[in-house]
Amino acid sequence: VIVWLNGALIDADAARLDPTDRGFTLGDGLFETIRIATGRPAHLDRHLARLRGGAEFLGIPVPSADDDIAAAISSLLAAEGLSEAAVRITLSRGPAARGVLPPARPVPTLLITVGPLPPAAAPAHVIIATVTRRNEASPLSRFKSLNYLDNILARQEAVRHGADDAVLLNVAGRIAEATAANLFVLAKDVLRTPPIADGALPGIMRSLLIERRGAVEASLTPADLMAAETAFLSNSLGLRRIAAVDGQRLRHDIDEHVIEELARCLD
Amino acid sequence: VIVWLNGALIDADAARLDPTDRGFTLGDGLFETIRIATGRPAHLDRHLARLRGGAEFLGIPVPSADDDIAAAISSLLAAEGLSEAAVRITLSRGPAARGVLPPARPVPTLLITVGPLPPAAAPAHVIIATVTRRNEASPLSRFKSLNYLDNILARQEAVRHGADDAVLLNVAGRIAEATAANLFVLAKDVLRTPPIADGALPGIMRSLLIERRGAVEASLTPADLMAAETAFLSNSLGLRRIAAVDGQRLRHDIDEHVIEELARCLD
Repeated sequence: VIVWLNGALIDADAARLDPTDRGFTLGDGLFETIRIATGRPAHLDRHLARLRGGAEFLGIPVPSADDDIAAAISSLLAAEGLSEAAVRITLSRGPAARGVLPPARPVPTLLITVGPLPPAAAPAHVIIATVTRRNEASPLSRFKSLNYLDNILARQEAVRHGADDAVLLNVAGRIAEATAANLFVLAKDVLRTPPIADGALPGIMRSLLIERRGAVEASLTPADLMAAETAFLSNSLGLRRIAAVDGQRLRHDIDEHVIEELARCLD
Repeated sequence: VIVWLNGALIDADAARLDPTDRGFTLGDGLFETIRIATGRPAHLDRHLARLRGGAEFLGIPVPSADDDIAAAISSLLAAEGLSEAAVRITLSRGPAARGVLPPARPVPTLLITVGPLPPAAAPAHVIIATVTRRNEASPLSRFKSLNYLDNILARQEAVRHGADDAVLLNVAGRIAEATAANLFVLAKDVLRTPPIADGALPGIMRSLLIERRGAVEASLTPADLMAAETAFLSNSLGLRRIAAVDGQRLRHDIDEHVIEELARCLD
């Protein structure tokens, strides 16, 4: 396996990070997950814009131009012989001495890895996470940061209950998102998804469903989810129907062809 | 510089982490900062108990026994010729394939580094952070996890305002802690510190001040801080007086000898 690290393609076994990297010591960084379809990264411009927005907010310089990142992805795909894949871009503030305050002149780490797409998944059984809440009062909820432990805890809770994923509520008790996806409900022909202010990550697929399919941002409670005709999860790797919430089946199972139709408009 | 990584003392320049380490990719881990006084780690038993408590909660195995960790610290101090120092223990879930769900059998990373103690600091000018809030609804607020970005954002805000540190409020608007320290106020001879339920990290020094100095847990607002006779920050590296909050000096500056007396009882 080949990875791209700070400008060079190298064997994954030879790729090594500095143990003082603030991505490792403090979760000080961001990432993007991008679907590769027929050899091309889907919506790369949007992913890089989100990455740059987060990096600017955190004060982490992005050490490569967008074109260089696009070329790095192409070279990685060629090296691995993949045309359908999942790419991950990780940006951290890089090595630094001990302490919370970032160095004045960070030397960021930029890592790009590629792997196979996960297999198509059956409709998801989800739980409403009780172990933790998503912090809508933190600006980090708007960025895809490396601080993923709340989501990890929620996913672990789901698996303990025999479910596939967990829906995170925010501190106010409204639905924010799933552990690695945005959430949409369809009721009375209206597609709704939690607003950013409720702690939803501004997902790329989420934006496209708003722009191209008229989905509306609306605060959602667990009761809204249970009452929905149908619901699904969206992330950059695709859409996934929700079959049941806390063990209770949703009233209607959306037709797979509806999901496929929605997904097509997102390419 | 020498570090201890997964059981071996090695040169820091040769120490390298796997880029798939979940500590780096997802902030999936914990750490401890320990003061070394006259060659011995202060309250190592308490630090290791907290680390193990967090690791158990997250489901990360601790790959070394307490005695082995103590021996690793001693060997690091000997190799570096330090008897007054700050040690950091970092535990992550280790390398893994892409995805939020942890691997069934993690191979954790345990890293121990040592460095000089920070120089004694003048009384701190602090701000009340406005950029973010600490999430008291997450169990992570009880553990010293690698998810430090909220604290980093608050510290950056402090520095932008010419201050030394920031006080984080929780989502409910109560004081939780500073960016790398607990907070205590002294008013009418009573030492008060925010409760864990308000998002305070259960600091080791904080516990000692409760056990040995009768400090009481009490919810605190910014107004309580402004009205305090005096206030200070505590972490494992020491106590630091607060001189001013949001540019306004506290009414009384605590005598340095009072702080010294408090600190002595914590050794």
